[in-house]
Amino acid sequence: MPTHNEDIVLLAHGDGGRLTHELVTGLFLRHLGNRVLEAMTDAAAFPVGEGRMAVTTDSFVIDPPFFPGGDIGKLAVCGTVNDLAVSGAEPRYLTAAFLIEEGFPLADLERVVASMAAACRDAGIEIVAGDTKVVGRGHLDRIFINTTGVGVIPAGVDLGYHRISPGDRILVNGNLGDHGMAVLATREGFGFGDRLVSDCAALHRITGRLLAELEGVKLMRDLTRGGLATSAKEIATSSGVDLWLSETDIPVGAGVKGAAEMLGVDPLYLANEGKFLAVVAPGEAEKALALMRADELGRNARIIGEVKAGAGNVFLKTALGGTKYLDLLAGAPLPRIC
Amino acid sequence: MPTHNEDIVLLAHGDGGRLTHELVTGLFLRHLGNRVLEAMTDAAAFPVGEGRMAVTTDSFVIDPPFFPGGDIGKLAVCGTVNDLAVSGAEPRYLTAAFLIEEGFPLADLERVVASMAAACRDAGIEIVAGDTKVVGRGHLDRIFINTTGVGVIPAGVDLGYHRISPGDRILVNGNLGDHGMAVLATREGFGFGDRLVSDCAALHRITGRLLAELEGVKLMRDLTRGGLATSAKEIATSSGVDLWLSETDIPVGAGVKGAAEMLGVDPLYLANEGKFLAVVAPGEAEKALALMRADELGRNARIIGEVKAGAGNVFLKTALGGTKYLDLLAGAPLPRIC
Repeated sequence: MPTHNEDIVLLAHGDGGRLTHELVTGLFLRHLGNRVLEAMTDAAAFPVGEGRMAVTTDSFVIDPPFFPGGDIGKLAVCGTVNDLAVSGAEPRYLTAAFLIEEGFPLADLERVVASMAAACRDAGIEIVAGDTKVVGRGHLDRIFINTTGVGVIPAGVDLGYHRISPGDRILVNGNLGDHGMAVLATREGFGFGDRLVSDCAALHRITGRLLAELEGVKLMRDLTRGGLATSAKEIATSSGVDLWLSETDIPVGAGVKGAAEMLGVDPLYLANEGKFLAVVAPGEAEKALALMRADELGRNARIIGEVKAGAGNVFLKTALGGTKYLDLLAGAPLPRIC
Repeated sequence: MPTHNEDIVLLAHGDGGRLTHELVTGLFLRHLGNRVLEAMTDAAAFPVGEGRMAVTTDSFVIDPPFFPGGDIGKLAVCGTVNDLAVSGAEPRYLTAAFLIEEGFPLADLERVVASMAAACRDAGIEIVAGDTKVVGRGHLDRIFINTTGVGVIPAGVDLGYHRISPGDRILVNGNLGDHGMAVLATREGFGFGDRLVSDCAALHRITGRLLAELEGVKLMRDLTRGGLATSAKEIATSSGVDLWLSETDIPVGAGVKGAAEMLGVDPLYLANEGKFLAVVAPGEAEKALALMRADELGRNARIIGEVKAGAGNVFLKTALGGTKYLDLLAGAPLPRIC
């Protein structure tokens, strides 16, 4: 079927002229429109109260842009919301910058933007500023999206490595590896793709609840690139303690477990997009677990380990009773996972 | 000369593991380090006072990444600073997200990052959060950078289309087309490249001065993609007035004028990266001009036209006495100019 010029993104959609204007008003504003964005000024202005703000940025280059459980648009909203959430911030505003390859189907772009809009509505957050660049064929693979998030940190929230101490418990809010395996299976056409679905979701409600109800939440971290193992190692190194994880307590779904065994990859290093780790004071760990499980994004939450005095290492007590040393991922990368 | 693996960016530099860590601490933090960025958390936290904030985002995909007068790093800082500046905001914080093609020379990356650091120091702004993604060869053309800027809008600043009225004067802070022509000449190897230098510069000091000293500054706009003509048309359309520009009053350097004639391009549509337009009440136009000229970035500032009652059109009184109708750029795009 021939592709008509009006069905694809053209270089002229990014030149700041008439087609850019049509794309912005006819597509972006139609889906994402709000009072701040519609002002169409060089910078979006919004009122803030005195306090602490948080800002985070992330580029999404996922291959393929559509996958079971989501797409690059949903991911670009949830990923940045989650970086704010685990920092203890209430997400407020997003910016969205699109990099698009000439020839990208406009219908696919619309699908991505509609998906962003739905994710923003779900998360109660607004996109207040945007940018679109179109580059020639072969100079970029289809579509990349950068989102930058601005949030407000409620008074009294204090998260950080400095608060971690021996005895603290380590929790996760559910099964690990779903996103990484779903993307890998889709990308490589492994066939069991439809049983594997990304966990892509916005975590700010569950993290906000934990912070509102408990005083013993020390640190949170979303388990994206590099998975649980990489985050655990970073936490251990930065806070100068050891993390002891128990393999039998770490939740991994049957589909991911099977596929991981078949492919020889370790689910602890696979990316997640709706999972986070929380380090919680021992006396509040059970309450944190109950709060997580009361949320639909934490039904399978678990206490997976404990902080011990040490020198920045992560140890995994295996199902067979041995002890394995976990390190940062080195080599064998799984690129373009988010 | 053979290229060694240690001299180029590898996929593993973007996988969140050991090499990512080395790149972040060994290169990014070394050049860009500050207290907020060094906290290395998922989101950067900073205190804000009550008031209005501004946020803006821009991706830079310029081809080539190095050009006379600057590079993609300097551009990524100045471009976003300028979007904040013309919105009346004092730039405070930037985020920087790097998209890098596997195989990009680490020495070039360092050159870009050092250039960003210098531009940040000059502008008095800090990069507080960052992200790095590496994609496989052929999936992205060398390096793209997204910057998102957060600024504070001083009390009393009110810029916008609603303030424009007939009689207002239109000013620019200097010669037009320098950036667009420098990039075009370099990209196409036209040979007169070394006489043409980008005007890439941060404009917040000169815009801040205008706002501090005058009450009649109605609107400002940086003249990037699409140049003066495109911005003028957007202003006319959005505010429902006509803009009358005088060709003989519009400053264009001799080098750009000559090259533009040779290539058949119109300098009024060429991108600038250190030029802005200001709409100023007639009674303060001369004072605005004097303030601009007192700044090294405004030495060749001019009053180039006037607002009249109308229907959203832009007219150019030509040097020969005729009147030309200026519209949005349509077709013949000059892609990847910023």
